[in-house]
Amino acid sequence: MKKGVLIVLSGFSGAGKGTITKKLLEKYDNYALSISMTTRNPRPGETDGREYFFVDKDTFERHIREDELIEYAQYVGNYYGTPRAYVEEQLNIGKDVILEIEIQGALKIKERFPDTLLLFVSTKNAKVLLERLTGRGTETEEVILNRMKRAAQEAEGMSEYEYIIINDDIDICVEETHSIIQSAKAATIRNEEFITVIQKELKDLSKGEK
Amino acid sequence: MKKGVLIVLSGFSGAGKGTITKKLLEKYDNYALSISMTTRNPRPGETDGREYFFVDKDTFERHIREDELIEYAQYVGNYYGTPRAYVEEQLNIGKDVILEIEIQGALKIKERFPDTLLLFVSTKNAKVLLERLTGRGTETEEVILNRMKRAAQEAEGMSEYEYIIINDDIDICVEETHSIIQSAKAATIRNEEFITVIQKELKDLSKGEK
Repeated sequence: MKKGVLIVLSGFSGAGKGTITKKLLEKYDNYALSISMTTRNPRPGETDGREYFFVDKDTFERHIREDELIEYAQYVGNYYGTPRAYVEEQLNIGKDVILEIEIQGALKIKERFPDTLLLFVSTKNAKVLLERLTGRGTETEEVILNRMKRAAQEAEGMSEYEYIIINDDIDICVEETHSIIQSAKAATIRNEEFITVIQKELKDLSKGEK
Repeated sequence: MKKGVLIVLSGFSGAGKGTITKKLLEKYDNYALSISMTTRNPRPGETDGREYFFVDKDTFERHIREDELIEYAQYVGNYYGTPRAYVEEQLNIGKDVILEIEIQGALKIKERFPDTLLLFVSTKNAKVLLERLTGRGTETEEVILNRMKRAAQEAEGMSEYEYIIINDDIDICVEETHSIIQSAKAATIRNEEFITVIQKELKDLSKGEK
């Protein structure tokens, strides 16, 4: 059983990360979704173990101390983190594990697990992003402007990602994302062990050792 | 019309580069094959403009002086090079142009055109490569050993490539190669212009400029 790939999906709020993940999970059986742990309170409709694992501060800090989180961060007074056990278990049975997290977490994970695949989801241009955020019709102009400011900040980190996924037509985008993930497995950075082995084999065989 | 991608296909002699290229060209209409120019004499069965453009030394050196070659090298007293005009013309009409060349040429091209896609074709292990070379039955043991030595040298450069393509089943391999090439278009290194543009757009829009 070949190990799965750890995938970080980041991107602008409104670009469609959540929908892409949902459709990948529905359509293909090689994916698993990592569920984050948080100390924030559940919102109406949220279920423990579905949106998040909801824990208290002591429990979260014990997880930190015992190195049971791949990454974690504090945001508006609450902890958010990625439990290690589930991710490793799924990778080991060959699943490609998707993490929907922000750039800071993404970069921490990449540093620790260099073969993590970093994907950034964008709209085809900024105007479409603004339209999508406005189109929801549920937010004030100020909230939308703040989201655009945040997007502008997030865009500064785009070059750190390995692929840019442009979500124009969602179904085409899901196909492309799947294809990108599968192809990324052939990237040299994810085949260093293979390269080392075949280099040695060829050296041995070209000495006439069989 | 979006420009095509320049693809360098390298790999061990016997790993199947030629077959992969041939099948990609047959199966998909987005590819074009770059034909090299050489000063060596045509072998029986070779046609000018099909295997190579056969030219004399003066013509080749004029092409060098006039910067009409993307890369060139000397090998056993003969020049080999990649004519620029055909490659650029095909890229401009959106074709993905395949170059079958060795690592030295590959690295020269990558330096000059950083968004060139470098693919390395390998067998799944060294033993299979040896079997394929032996299986042809047309070569002496010494020739085969020399090829294996050459493969061992070539393997030292594998990490310079962006993807490793393992040719086990040829039809699966052709599919994978096609998918890798198309996915590679979403790689961040090939979307720097897009990133710069959307960064600026978002900055402008988040100032409230529309």
